[in-house]
Amino acid sequence: MVPRKRNQDCLVVFQPSGRRGYVSQGKSIKAAAREIGVDIEGVCGEKATCGKCKIRIEAGYFDEYGIESRMSNVSQLCEAEGRLLSAQQQHDGYRLACQALIFGDVVVFVPEESRLGKHVMRKVPTERSINLKPAVKKYCIKVVPATLQDNLGDWERLRIELEKRFHLSNLAIDYQVLVSLQRVIRQSNWVVTVSVWMDSEVIKVEPGVVEKGYGLAVDIGTTTLAGYLCDLSNGEVMAADSMTNPQVHYGEDVMSRIGYAITHEGGCQRLNQVIVKALNQIAGRTAAGTGIKRQAIVDATVVGNTCMHHIFLNLDPQYLGKAPFTPSIHHSLNIKARDLGLRISPGAYVHVLPIEAGFVGADNVGALIAEEPYNQDDMTLIVDIGTNGELVLGNRDRLISASCATGPAFEGGEIRHGMRAAPGAVEKIEIAPDTKEVRFKVIGKKRWNTESGDTGAKGICGSGIIDAIAHLVRAGIVDRSGRFITDMETPRLRAADEGPEFVIAWANETSVGHDIVVCQKDVRNIQLAKGAMYAGAKIIMRRLGVERLDRILLAGAFGSQIDKESAALIGLFPDCALENVRAIGNAAGDGARIALLNVDKRAEAERVAKMVEYVELTMEPDFDKTFAEAMWFPHMREGFPHLQHLLHQKGTD
Amino acid sequence: MVPRKRNQDCLVVFQPSGRRGYVSQGKSIKAAAREIGVDIEGVCGEKATCGKCKIRIEAGYFDEYGIESRMSNVSQLCEAEGRLLSAQQQHDGYRLACQALIFGDVVVFVPEESRLGKHVMRKVPTERSINLKPAVKKYCIKVVPATLQDNLGDWERLRIELEKRFHLSNLAIDYQVLVSLQRVIRQSNWVVTVSVWMDSEVIKVEPGVVEKGYGLAVDIGTTTLAGYLCDLSNGEVMAADSMTNPQVHYGEDVMSRIGYAITHEGGCQRLNQVIVKALNQIAGRTAAGTGIKRQAIVDATVVGNTCMHHIFLNLDPQYLGKAPFTPSIHHSLNIKARDLGLRISPGAYVHVLPIEAGFVGADNVGALIAEEPYNQDDMTLIVDIGTNGELVLGNRDRLISASCATGPAFEGGEIRHGMRAAPGAVEKIEIAPDTKEVRFKVIGKKRWNTESGDTGAKGICGSGIIDAIAHLVRAGIVDRSGRFITDMETPRLRAADEGPEFVIAWANETSVGHDIVVCQKDVRNIQLAKGAMYAGAKIIMRRLGVERLDRILLAGAFGSQIDKESAALIGLFPDCALENVRAIGNAAGDGARIALLNVDKRAEAERVAKMVEYVELTMEPDFDKTFAEAMWFPHMREGFPHLQHLLHQKGTD
Repeated sequence: MVPRKRNQDCLVVFQPSGRRGYVSQGKSIKAAAREIGVDIEGVCGEKATCGKCKIRIEAGYFDEYGIESRMSNVSQLCEAEGRLLSAQQQHDGYRLACQALIFGDVVVFVPEESRLGKHVMRKVPTERSINLKPAVKKYCIKVVPATLQDNLGDWERLRIELEKRFHLSNLAIDYQVLVSLQRVIRQSNWVVTVSVWMDSEVIKVEPGVVEKGYGLAVDIGTTTLAGYLCDLSNGEVMAADSMTNPQVHYGEDVMSRIGYAITHEGGCQRLNQVIVKALNQIAGRTAAGTGIKRQAIVDATVVGNTCMHHIFLNLDPQYLGKAPFTPSIHHSLNIKARDLGLRISPGAYVHVLPIEAGFVGADNVGALIAEEPYNQDDMTLIVDIGTNGELVLGNRDRLISASCATGPAFEGGEIRHGMRAAPGAVEKIEIAPDTKEVRFKVIGKKRWNTESGDTGAKGICGSGIIDAIAHLVRAGIVDRSGRFITDMETPRLRAADEGPEFVIAWANETSVGHDIVVCQKDVRNIQLAKGAMYAGAKIIMRRLGVERLDRILLAGAFGSQIDKESAALIGLFPDCALENVRAIGNAAGDGARIALLNVDKRAEAERVAKMVEYVELTMEPDFDKTFAEAMWFPHMREGFPHLQHLLHQKGTD
Repeated sequence: MVPRKRNQDCLVVFQPSGRRGYVSQGKSIKAAAREIGVDIEGVCGEKATCGKCKIRIEAGYFDEYGIESRMSNVSQLCEAEGRLLSAQQQHDGYRLACQALIFGDVVVFVPEESRLGKHVMRKVPTERSINLKPAVKKYCIKVVPATLQDNLGDWERLRIELEKRFHLSNLAIDYQVLVSLQRVIRQSNWVVTVSVWMDSEVIKVEPGVVEKGYGLAVDIGTTTLAGYLCDLSNGEVMAADSMTNPQVHYGEDVMSRIGYAITHEGGCQRLNQVIVKALNQIAGRTAAGTGIKRQAIVDATVVGNTCMHHIFLNLDPQYLGKAPFTPSIHHSLNIKARDLGLRISPGAYVHVLPIEAGFVGADNVGALIAEEPYNQDDMTLIVDIGTNGELVLGNRDRLISASCATGPAFEGGEIRHGMRAAPGAVEKIEIAPDTKEVRFKVIGKKRWNTESGDTGAKGICGSGIIDAIAHLVRAGIVDRSGRFITDMETPRLRAADEGPEFVIAWANETSVGHDIVVCQKDVRNIQLAKGAMYAGAKIIMRRLGVERLDRILLAGAFGSQIDKESAALIGLFPDCALENVRAIGNAAGDGARIALLNVDKRAEAERVAKMVEYVELTMEPDFDKTFAEAMWFPHMREGFPHLQHLLHQKGTD
C-alpha cells in the first residue's frame, strides 16, 4: 500500500487510524492526509482562518515505523496558528494541518473533532407527480437490408424508416454513433433500437430490441452530491445515491473553492476533475445498483449553484468571486457527455439547467420548477439554507431572488464545537425553562442523552445550534439581542476566558473528552447568519411590496433537519403561520429529476430563470440597517403574530 | 538515431540508403522499411500480387555493422514469391519485401525500380471565379463591461451585442469557446472578434480586432492529398500544398486499403490516423507558409471518394468492399475538428461533402459543383481517372454516375516497367510510323532522349503507357485487337519468354540498367482498364439515350497529364471533338474550395448528390459484351468521326 520511498520523501503516519505513506518534502499535513486518504476537517479552503484542521505532532522514537518524529520535522508555527491555537495547544504540539509543512518523518495525531465524519446523506428524492415527456425516446425498427439493386447508405436507410414509421424528419446522427452504425445494424439482423434526442438527433443505436432507456438527474451541492437514476419509460427512480462533494477538501464553501481555484495553479481543473470523477462514481453505482450498464444511461440533467455549475463545466469561477460577480453564462446548455468526461452513453447529452444570477444558480431553478410558485397566487418564499443561502420570493406576477453569505455557521463552521451533520453531532436540543437542564439527541444514536449515557457526542451540527439558541432564548439565558444573561443559577452557564458559555453536554457525555458548549461567539455567528437570511427575505419582500408571507418552503438537507419552531423563534425567516412552513427536501435535485423526465419543464426553467429578478443584497442602501435589526431574536422591531404563544414566555419579550 | 537494441531485436540495414534500425523478430521487410523510414513500392496492399516490392537480401559479413547477413535470417520463400520472382531472381536472393519475414540481422538492397519516388504533385488549384459566402464570418464587437448594477453573464452580454449590431439571433456557443470566454473578453478591454458559423454558433472568440479568418479545403485522393488554405474574407488561395497519401504504404488502390483494414487488427484506425496526421501536416505547412497560426483556420471542407471519405471519418470501410457495397452515410456532415483530431481552431467545423454511391464519392460531388453540368444543356461527360475510375454524364435534366475498376494500370501498376508519375518516369512517347524509332521524355528532365543521352529513365508512368500504345497502334506494331504484329523489321520488337515486347528505352538510356519495354501483357492490362472506362461511359450513355457527347472533361492529375489525342486514339472514351475534350485539373479539390467559400454550394452539393443516379456497371446485363468490344483500339465496332484523320493511317484500320 505504501508507495516506494524516493529520495527526500518523508514518512507520515496518521494516528489513531495508523494510515501512513511517503510524501515529498514541503507538502502540508492536510495535503499529505488527502494523498494518503485520511480525512481532516477544514472549512476555509486552507486559508488558516477556520481552525478546524487542528492536529497534534507526536514527538519521540516510534519503533514500529523505525522513525523518529520530531517537532522540528515540520515548519515553524505561523502567525495564523499563533492566533488560532491556545498557548496550551501550542505547548502540546497542536498545529493547523493546512499550515504545517512536512520536512521529515512525522507521526500526526488527528483528534476526533478534526476527523471528517461520514456525512449523513439526506438527499432522498421527494415523491412528486411528474408528466412524462423525456428528451430521449427509444424506437425499435427493422431496417430494410441493402441489396445490389438498393444499396443506399445505412444511415439513409435508418432515416427513411424513422421518418416513415415515426414521422421523425430531418434527423441528424451523432458522429460517434455513426462510426459504429454499420456493425451494429448487422449485429442483430437489421433490427436496431434507436435513441433519439429531442426528436432531432440519433444519439445511440443498439442491436436488437431494447425497451428501456435510463437518465441520471444530478444535484451538485456545495457539500453533498445527489444522483437519481430514472427509468425514462415510466419516470421511476431506480436508484438514488449521494456522497460528499469531494471538493470539500479544497474548501467548505463556494468562496473558499473560488479562492482555491484562483490561488492554485490548475486549481480550477482539479476541482473540475474531482467533481466529474465523483459523478462518474454516482453513475456507476446507481447503474450497478439497477443492474444496468452505465452506457444504458442516455440522458442526464445537472443542477447546482452558480459556482458548482461553473466548476462542473470547467468554467473558471474566478470572476464569480469578485465584483461585479459576472458568470460565464446563464442559459441552459446541452453538452455531449463525452465532452464533459461523464462516462455514460457517449452520444448522450448532459442538460445543464440555467442559472439565475449571483450564486442563485441552477439549483434554485430546479427548486422553482419543482414547486412552481410562478403558477400560484400565494406569496411563497423558498429558502435554501445550504452552505450558501438562497432566497426566492413571489408568485405568478413576479419573482425575486437573492443570495446571502450565511457563512458556514449553519453547517457547524465558525462554531466552537460545531460540526457537520454527521454521526456524533448533537442534532436536537431542549433546555428546560425552569431547571435549565439539557436534553439532547445525537445523530447515529436512537435515544436521547437522558435515556442513555452513551451519547458519543463529538460536537453540535446546524440543527442542534438552532435548537440550542432558540431554547437559550426561551429559557431567558440569552436575551433577544443575543447577550448571555450571566446571573443565572446553573452550573451550565459559566464564565470562560472568551466570555460566558453554556454547557450542552458534559465531558462524560461525549466521546471527545471535554464539555461541549455554546459560547457567546457562537451566538454572534448564528446571529450573523440568520440575520443575513432574514434581512435578505425582508429586502425582497419590500421590493415586491409584500407585508406577509403565505407560505415558506425550506429546501435542502438543512431545511429538512431543523426544527421549524426553533427556526421561527430565532428569526431565520419573517413571520408566517407555522403550518405553512414546510420542508420540501432536496427540491434542487427534484428539479433536476423533473427536467430529466419532462422537456417542457426544461423550457419552463429557461423562461423562469430569465423571469426571476435578482437583488444584489449588499448593494441595497438599507441593507446594513435591515441586517442589524434582523440579528435580534427573532427581530428587533417586527411583530410575530404567529409566534405570540411562544414569545410571551418568560424572558423572551 | 537507431533505437536501443532489445533482446530478440534484429538489425536491418537498407542499401543503398544506408538507413538502419532494430526491429522485432517476425516483422516483414516492408514493415521494417516503414518503421525505419525507407520507402518501398507496393500496389497490392501487401497481398503478394503486384510484385512491386522486390528487394534483394545481401549475404555476407558486413564489417561496418558488425553483423552477418544470411538468407537464412529471413523466412522461406513463399508460394506467391515462387510465382512472381523469376528463377534467376530467386537465385540472386530477390524476395518480396511484404512476404519475407525477418528472423535475424540482414542487409537488404532496394533496387531502384522498387524505390518509391517522390511523387510529382500536380494538384494545383484551378483559377475559378467563386461567389464569396463563407460559412464562418467574423464580427468585431465591443462588449459592454459588467457592473454591479448590470452583472448579466458574459455570454448573454455578447449575445445581446451580436443580435443588436448584426441581427444574429438564437446563437449558440461552442462549449470549448465558452470555457475560455471570460478570460478572452477581459484580455483586450472587452473588445473581441467573434467567429460565427452558419449564422448559428459562435465557434471562436479572440481578443481584440482580428480581421481575417482562414479556411482549408482538402481533397483526399487515393494517391495524393491536396490542401488549399484560403482567406475567407476574399477567397484568395494563400497556400496550396500536396503530398502523397501516406496510406499508399498499406495498399495502392481503394480495394487494397479496404483489404488492409479488414485483415489487420486495428487496420481501419491506423489508416485513419495516418490520414489525419497528414492533413495536420498540410494544415500546419500551409498555415506556416501564410504566416498564420493553425488555430486561425476556422473552417474546413473535405472531399474524397467513398473509401477515402469513410476512412477519414474513421468509418470502417469493410462494407464498401463487398456486395452490396453499402456506405455508412451519403449525407454531408459537419463535425467538430477536435472530434476528428484535426488541429485547426478547436471549435471549427469540418464540412465533409456528401457522397453519391459506390465509390463515386464526395470528390465527384466536388467536381460537379465546380463544373455544374446540371446547369447546362450540353451533354457533358466528366471522367476522373484516378486510381479508381469515376464517370458522370448528363445535363440539367438528368445525371448518371458510375465507377469502374480500372485497376492500377494507369498509375503504372500491373505494367512490367510501370511506375507512378515520379521523377524517372517516361511520361511522353512517340514512335515514328516508318522507322519505328522512339522518342521519349522523362519526368524531371527538360530534354527528350533524342536530345540528351542522360534520361535517367526508371520506368513508364500512365501517360507514357497511353502514348506508347497509341503510337504502337498508329505505327501498326499492335493491331486494333491489341495483338503485337510480330513480323516487323525493327530490333525494338522482339520475342521474349512471356511473348513479344517492344523496347521503349535501351538499357544504356536508363538508370536501372535494363531495357524498358512494353510487353503484350501490358497492352492487355491497358485494354482492360480503358475498356472498363469506355464501357462504363457507353452504358450510361445508353441509359440516358445519348448518341454523341458534346463535351468531355478530364478531371484529376492523370487527366492533366495524358495526351488527349493518344487517349482518344486508344479509346479511353467515346468519340468527341478533340477541341471539346478538356483537362479540368483537380476538380474535386476545386469543389472542396468552392464549398469552403460558398455555403450555397454546400446545399447545392447535397441536392446534386441526391440527384445523381448511380449505375452499378457490373450489374448491367450487357456489361460483358460492351466491355469486350470496348477493349479494342479504339473500339471494335463504333465509328469515330472526330478521329478519322488519325485512324486512316496505315495499320490502324
